[in-house]
Amino acid sequence: MSVWKAPAGYEARVRDSFARQKAMATMGIELVSVAPGLVTMAMPHDEALTQQHGFIHAGVIAAGMDSAAGYAAMSLMDPEAAVLTAEFKTSLLARAKGARFLFRGEVLKPGRTLSFTEGKAFAVVDGAEVLIATLTATMMALKGRAGLKH
Amino acid sequence: MSVWKAPAGYEARVRDSFARQKAMATMGIELVSVAPGLVTMAMPHDEALTQQHGFIHAGVIAAGMDSAAGYAAMSLMDPEAAVLTAEFKTSLLARAKGARFLFRGEVLKPGRTLSFTEGKAFAVVDGAEVLIATLTATMMALKGRAGLKH
Amino acid sequence: MSVWKAPAGYEARVRDSFARQKAMATMGIELVSVAPGLVTMAMPHDEALTQQHGFIHAGVIAAGMDSAAGYAAMSLMDPEAAVLTAEFKTSLLARAKGARFLFRGEVLKPGRTLSFTEGKAFAVVDGAEVLIATLTATMMALKGRAGLKH
Amino acid sequence: MSVWKAPAGYEARVRDSFARQKAMATMGIELVSVAPGLVTMAMPHDEALTQQHGFIHAGVIAAGMDSAAGYAAMSLMDPEAAVLTAEFKTSLLARAKGARFLFRGEVLKPGRTLSFTEGKAFAVVDGAEVLIATLTATMMALKGRAGLKH
Repeated sequence: MSVWKAPAGYEARVRDSFARQKAMATMGIELVSVAPGLVTMAMPHDEALTQQHGFIHAGVIAAGMDSAAGYAAMSLMDPEAAVLTAEFKTSLLARAKGARFLFRGEVLKPGRTLSFTEGKAFAVVDGAEVLIATLTATMMALKGRAGLKH
Repeated sequence: MSVWKAPAGYEARVRDSFARQKAMATMGIELVSVAPGLVTMAMPHDEALTQQHGFIHAGVIAAGMDSAAGYAAMSLMDPEAAVLTAEFKTSLLARAKGARFLFRGEVLKPGRTLSFTEGKAFAVVDGAEVLIATLTATMMALKGRAGLKH
Repeated sequence: MSVWKAPAGYEARVRDSFARQKAMATMGIELVSVAPGLVTMAMPHDEALTQQHGFIHAGVIAAGMDSAAGYAAMSLMDPEAAVLTAEFKTSLLARAKGARFLFRGEVLKPGRTLSFTEGKAFAVVDGAEVLIATLTATMMALKGRAGLKH
Repeated sequence: MSVWKAPAGYEARVRDSFARQKAMATMGIELVSVAPGLVTMAMPHDEALTQQHGFIHAGVIAAGMDSAAGYAAMSLMDPEAAVLTAEFKTSLLARAKGARFLFRGEVLKPGRTLSFTEGKAFAVVDGAEVLIATLTATMMALKGRAGLKH
């Protein structure tokens, strides 16, 4: 459950911005839900995104968690702000093996400039969600830079 | 310059394994060079991999550095070992904007079980290399697990 | 609540090892409770541990979370194993300002060789716990190395 | 060698602020040198700072690298700004065993708000420097907050 309050229109801003992330379409990652400070995405298994052992590449799992966490942060930001990832760390607890994957991003502490977020990735195996990776990320709000939309 | 000694056949093992990473082909990432504990990859700009501002998605940059660092670690490992990323952290110093990108992975300290590695990503802008991201990663050697090749 | 099963004698092993960490005594950090995969420590505010603004130094907060997470991992390990931190990341959400601090370490995924853990630090302010920092750490089990006890 | 330009008076500001870090005195960490974007500190071995195996506690090693990196960032900042660590990650390559330890902090990319830094810790063993840990940290410049000096 989300505990934060988001400025009006947050969901449309997140969905608009997500729709412009071509990397998400290329990876087959879809936006499932947007709540204040809490975003969920999903991705089917895709052989085109595997590493040498046939599991999804860690970079793809990280991309999903990073996007979910970034949009969780953006949902709470000033409507004029763009969001950029300053850094993230991911721990890969288990192989990315499943029919489908879920990425959850959440704001731990929002801020005018920096927002601290975390992410989780789950593999859906026989209908059950298995935690396969975690992420912590520092997100930065950028305002008034020409050429940057949300 | 590499300071490590790799077991015979390391380059072929790395090239074989890399060729099985379908995610690398999907992202247009190519293996440029393999030395003991030091691997370089390259990727052209590709609009299909961009985030909402038209720069390459952080997850893709991370994927390139993670692969380069992982294969740098594998080059020094026992020929029987497979390599898995336990965790990585990436700092995104500048936007991933350029005609072409380079990913360099290097071993800081090899080990029988854990190898500590680092990675760097550069954008090639007007012929000059600009550092855009760094990575540190813990790589794990896995042996004797059925179904895992290098 | 802990969800893991620890080998018999885990609490005594953790308490013994903690008692040998002179850094913990120097920092005034005490062991509060030990459950399987879940360890809590506490520390009073101490001016001798402050940074330039009068708050507790980030390195001290990190030391508390790292110890709590390391012992959480050790509680689930083979009784013969020693535990070493391979790496950790900490995010400093808020200033370490309070009368007292709590450090909680928890195992996310135990393993024979690597255990993935996380930690949280809280400041106790007017009786309420305020989350001031998070940690994720990779812990390694070491066996059969001469001279290393738990 | 440092490649950055620091505002006049940077060394005095760093030395003043360091002198107020009581945690550094408690840990026996001294400021060795301050150059623009590059700071070195040193610490003798001290049994009061050890973990259960008699090596220096990872939190203490992290505290040294974090301080060195933070002051490297501060040396390049606006004279009015205070510096706070937003996050850091440390990899512990080898045991912290030696007669003396060196901590080097360096700025990878300075910024008005965020500075990306890295740190290294060395053990001095028989006169040779052995790399025992690395750090990457995001530092934040804070201005105009009452009660915060450098």
